[in-house]
Amino acid sequence: MSKVVRSTTNPGVKSAVRLRNRRARKETGLFLVEGFREIRRALDANIGIETLWFCPELYLGGSEGELVDRASVAGAEIAQVAEAPFKKMAYRDRPEGLLAVCRQFDTSLEQIEIGTSPLLLVVEAIEKPGNLGTMIRTATAAHADAVIVADQNTDVFNPNVVRASIGTMFAMPIAVCSTENAVAWLHEHGVTITASTPDVDLAHWDASFGDRAAVVVGAEQYGLSETWLSAADTKVRIPMPGDAIDSLNAAAAAAVLLYEALRQRSL
Amino acid sequence: MSKVVRSTTNPGVKSAVRLRNRRARKETGLFLVEGFREIRRALDANIGIETLWFCPELYLGGSEGELVDRASVAGAEIAQVAEAPFKKMAYRDRPEGLLAVCRQFDTSLEQIEIGTSPLLLVVEAIEKPGNLGTMIRTATAAHADAVIVADQNTDVFNPNVVRASIGTMFAMPIAVCSTENAVAWLHEHGVTITASTPDVDLAHWDASFGDRAAVVVGAEQYGLSETWLSAADTKVRIPMPGDAIDSLNAAAAAAVLLYEALRQRSL
Repeated sequence: MSKVVRSTTNPGVKSAVRLRNRRARKETGLFLVEGFREIRRALDANIGIETLWFCPELYLGGSEGELVDRASVAGAEIAQVAEAPFKKMAYRDRPEGLLAVCRQFDTSLEQIEIGTSPLLLVVEAIEKPGNLGTMIRTATAAHADAVIVADQNTDVFNPNVVRASIGTMFAMPIAVCSTENAVAWLHEHGVTITASTPDVDLAHWDASFGDRAAVVVGAEQYGLSETWLSAADTKVRIPMPGDAIDSLNAAAAAAVLLYEALRQRSL
Repeated sequence: MSKVVRSTTNPGVKSAVRLRNRRARKETGLFLVEGFREIRRALDANIGIETLWFCPELYLGGSEGELVDRASVAGAEIAQVAEAPFKKMAYRDRPEGLLAVCRQFDTSLEQIEIGTSPLLLVVEAIEKPGNLGTMIRTATAAHADAVIVADQNTDVFNPNVVRASIGTMFAMPIAVCSTENAVAWLHEHGVTITASTPDVDLAHWDASFGDRAAVVVGAEQYGLSETWLSAADTKVRIPMPGDAIDSLNAAAAAAVLLYEALRQRSL
């Protein structure tokens, strides 16, 4: 174990801080995972940890030391750091003393494998990283086979995606691709596409999602692109008797659709 | 119209900034509403606006001036402010030049009126203001009669509740009260209480929510208190085939339950 890093201008500390920026993530192929629960999930899913920064003064529980040992066994460099530089790296309001610099994993469409009756969540052009992370978490709870992020502008390695997903994104297969490639892939795999839009009459609970189903949710403000609306086998509306103008937020819409698909499968 | 406020140490600017703190909100009975859409909703719902700060340099659209006029007619003091002091008051990353200091409205249980087949959302001890705001927004989309916040520690006037609700909280009747008072009120009004908990076998889609229904959602980490679990007519589990340990986030759970209740009403 090397000595404790005490300087906020330590090069490693500065590199970690830079990973909040997308460009630095792209250039290095690295991203940040903060927190006990999230790092445990990264280890469970064999995500490569380059460096695990730890700050015992900030620990909340009693199991942090074990997690640090586990990361070390898994090949991570382990670096103890004082409170000031740790807080500089941390992006949480209440840091709990664990921050991992991880290697980005494969998010190509080609690595996605699905079962015989897959359930997929497709999202297009979701602007808020927190919403995307919440949707991955919901897809995990609903046991979806994969999440397809049909927008190459979205960075799934944004720290707020990691945080809102509470690390479920490490076990959930995720593909980032263009809408065109996603549509072609879904057709090729015989998946029924159900797209959500306010402009149709069919309520989502009156539609059949099918045995090989993808539900597609767009950005709140602009909805789905014409490409998705044309590619859809079924277009459904989530009824909003209370307010026709401002829809549910995108993460709430995804939860409602995934759980209706699950309900139908339970019958 | 008085002259433009240019100083970031102007007393009015400083008072507005202080309203981010709960204690200042409590002492003054005021709260902040930022953004065009949110302030329009406040005006639509006759929320009292004490002061409307506006900064034309930051306007994004063409209708802000009209909204300022409308607020003035409604009795608000109108104050033009330069960019620097506006940005000091704003809590959004991309302020759009409108910030209202509003008077808190009645959130007592006594003011809640419900219809003959009410649908209510009850939340207990929700820690994150953003989650609470999202739940109010979802309840609005689902046309719930009211949202009952069964925890006197939650401040519904937190700016992040306002923001995540996108102002829907001004038209949605909201009550903040103790769990005991909420239970008594629901019983008195003949409302069937359906509580969500991971510790039962009944899936929410196999339960009947009833014609006078309240769905109760607790904090993600601790779930519902014993009081709610005892008071519930039905306890349901949202099935999570994919991950039994970390549940859906509280806002996603509320969306799933409210929409299952709506689906049953559509049959």
